[in-house]
Amino acid sequence: MIKIYDVKDIPIEKILERTKVDYSAYTAAVEEIIAAVESKGDKALVSHAKKFDNTVLTDFKVSEEEIDEAMKGADTEFLRALSGAIENITAYHKRQLKDGFEYTTVMGAVLGQKVSPVESVCVYVPGGTAAYPSTVLMCAIPAKLAGVKNIYLTSPAKDGAVNKDILVAARLAGVTEVYKLGGAQAIAAFAKGTKSVPMVDKIVGPGNIYVATAKRLLFGEIGIDMIAGPSEILVVADKGASYRCVAADMLSQAEHDKLATAILVTDCAELAEKVAAEIELQLQSLPRAEIARASIDTSGKIIVAESIEGAVDIANAIAPEHLELAVSNPVELLDKVKNAGSVFLGYNTPEAVGDYYAGANHTLPTSGTARFSSALSVDDFVKKTQYIYYSEAALKNSRKQIQCFAEKEGLAAHGRSVAIRFEDDENE
Amino acid sequence: MIKIYDVKDIPIEKILERTKVDYSAYTAAVEEIIAAVESKGDKALVSHAKKFDNTVLTDFKVSEEEIDEAMKGADTEFLRALSGAIENITAYHKRQLKDGFEYTTVMGAVLGQKVSPVESVCVYVPGGTAAYPSTVLMCAIPAKLAGVKNIYLTSPAKDGAVNKDILVAARLAGVTEVYKLGGAQAIAAFAKGTKSVPMVDKIVGPGNIYVATAKRLLFGEIGIDMIAGPSEILVVADKGASYRCVAADMLSQAEHDKLATAILVTDCAELAEKVAAEIELQLQSLPRAEIARASIDTSGKIIVAESIEGAVDIANAIAPEHLELAVSNPVELLDKVKNAGSVFLGYNTPEAVGDYYAGANHTLPTSGTARFSSALSVDDFVKKTQYIYYSEAALKNSRKQIQCFAEKEGLAAHGRSVAIRFEDDENE
Repeated sequence: MIKIYDVKDIPIEKILERTKVDYSAYTAAVEEIIAAVESKGDKALVSHAKKFDNTVLTDFKVSEEEIDEAMKGADTEFLRALSGAIENITAYHKRQLKDGFEYTTVMGAVLGQKVSPVESVCVYVPGGTAAYPSTVLMCAIPAKLAGVKNIYLTSPAKDGAVNKDILVAARLAGVTEVYKLGGAQAIAAFAKGTKSVPMVDKIVGPGNIYVATAKRLLFGEIGIDMIAGPSEILVVADKGASYRCVAADMLSQAEHDKLATAILVTDCAELAEKVAAEIELQLQSLPRAEIARASIDTSGKIIVAESIEGAVDIANAIAPEHLELAVSNPVELLDKVKNAGSVFLGYNTPEAVGDYYAGANHTLPTSGTARFSSALSVDDFVKKTQYIYYSEAALKNSRKQIQCFAEKEGLAAHGRSVAIRFEDDENE
Repeated sequence: MIKIYDVKDIPIEKILERTKVDYSAYTAAVEEIIAAVESKGDKALVSHAKKFDNTVLTDFKVSEEEIDEAMKGADTEFLRALSGAIENITAYHKRQLKDGFEYTTVMGAVLGQKVSPVESVCVYVPGGTAAYPSTVLMCAIPAKLAGVKNIYLTSPAKDGAVNKDILVAARLAGVTEVYKLGGAQAIAAFAKGTKSVPMVDKIVGPGNIYVATAKRLLFGEIGIDMIAGPSEILVVADKGASYRCVAADMLSQAEHDKLATAILVTDCAELAEKVAAEIELQLQSLPRAEIARASIDTSGKIIVAESIEGAVDIANAIAPEHLELAVSNPVELLDKVKNAGSVFLGYNTPEAVGDYYAGANHTLPTSGTARFSSALSVDDFVKKTQYIYYSEAALKNSRKQIQCFAEKEGLAAHGRSVAIRFEDDENE
């Protein structure tokens, strides 16, 4: 049964406590995989697919015919759900597109910032027990909108084939090519490039701890989106919230993963009691009850705060991945929200709306990183290049100041690079 | 003497070769420092300042009086250079400020993105042989413009005091408080918080390999700007470029660090020869000749390309931190530039202009990371928070599609969190 705390009785450290994932335990194994891919290339990919995914690969790329076939087999309802989601995700993310800027100073210097797409990215989509076509859309659509030329997708094959729902989503989202690789070896292959796998500039998408460790180790050689920790929801609810809805929303997070966290903060002690009982009830009929139960028992919490504003303060301190404001005045409270990946406003916006369909991204900062980072967006697929043009007059005008800095910083060659451009004048 | 290659004779691997910094050799030592700060707090900071910076600290914060005194002692020329730079840096970075967005769908759903500042940041400014007031400006001004409430600066003390030029720059740039801490222990203190040092959300700024390793290890608990590798310049020059200016610009990079890299790519064999000879000549009168010589001999290169366009292709493959286009048509060539941190256009824009004064940032992606990352900017000091509001009608309208995804992904509680909101209707 989920525990209920009065805010006065629970120390802040206990409120902020999070499941820590120890990546270091996986470092050596993943370093070995990366080294094998680097030295043996495609051969290592074949042997690792056999060893880790128990699948025999004769090639790595999914053919256009395989994707055509998956498209033919897709049912209408799924295709309709996908196309609705694509429309909504596109509508949201196209608003993130930004132009550069350029301006000329009075002295005739021109400065600017040019925005251009990252050239090649790889979207990693986990395989395993369930396939996640929504992840394909959430990662590929912002990349497409940003103008990324090569959007590769990779997902571990089962019996030599990638999940058909993923293939359908990839086709509709505009993915360039799909590969059958999974695990740390897939990350290594796209980071280093092999004979059959193209090297990319950035890898995005969720994955198990081997995938996350490979991304962490290769960060710097390639760009990555983020290191996602266990999923989290924090529900702030007032007395107007339905205890049944709140319980259902908390369980929708808890069913993801035994390490997932679901927290309710409310100013209504009665709601707290009812939600706790309702969670028990709903757990009984949940297919993934074992996972959800472990999550609720380990890290689930209900905190009774003194006020709804106090509840938002707690949310800001936790900086949750998903924040539901199941309150009568959600827009007003949103102004007070400082740290959260994605916020779900009002009584009728369960987190699942955002996971799949509304249009905002579902790749979100976890583990408190919402204090300083943001949902995956078009920004993750562009670079901003600065540029500066100085006319001779502009350089002359700034010369003294630049040389003053160079002297202060003890860097004579910096000063000389400016002075040398005026030596002829002075020798005249 | 710097080596000259014809592009046809140098393999691509050799062109792309970079000095690799092995962080792993420092990991254990830095982990120990972080653990000490975490367990012993302020006491560890005192003992580490003694041990690593050879300075006795009785407190960690620089008093307002000390800063007042530094301001009084500052010479007019330096104050003028600082205020000019602040004006230019502000003019450039304020153009990076962005609003959020919000829109309402036909079904009555509201979606938006709210942009808000990171609450607390720490700017690390190295001490050591030279002090870098320009780094203070380049890190603090974008933070200030973004609206960051607490901008702390830390720099290692010498004889118990922080360099006065840094204090002056900090005051003028709007830094909140200055601390006397340096090294990995400073990074650990601001990441974890101690009795006397505030915990921050993000740490930015350059540093030695201990500082870089601490940032890398603590990334995730806190945000960081980037892991900066050795500094780099690539000059693309045509026959109209002055060999003396090109040589001076290359040396302004080489003098930074023995590991720094300076490369010239030109379509003019004559220029190549002249620059090579001129570098030797200018080295003779350079105060930091030993450092610059080591950089030039180890990783300096001149490549003679078949055309200026070919030279830009090489620049894109290298993705240099600084790219000079010392050519007659720099604006035209800028269109072809894909990967570079900052681009300096024409014959009169030496890199030093951008290092100090023009207004664009000097904290730039190194080691080829310009393929997927960008200069430090206002974007590094804000978070984008997504929000979604669904009316009952909007939820009803999307219900089928959301449940279809939930089924496909095998997550029943996700589906139920939507369905439960309509159960009463259905039971009526």
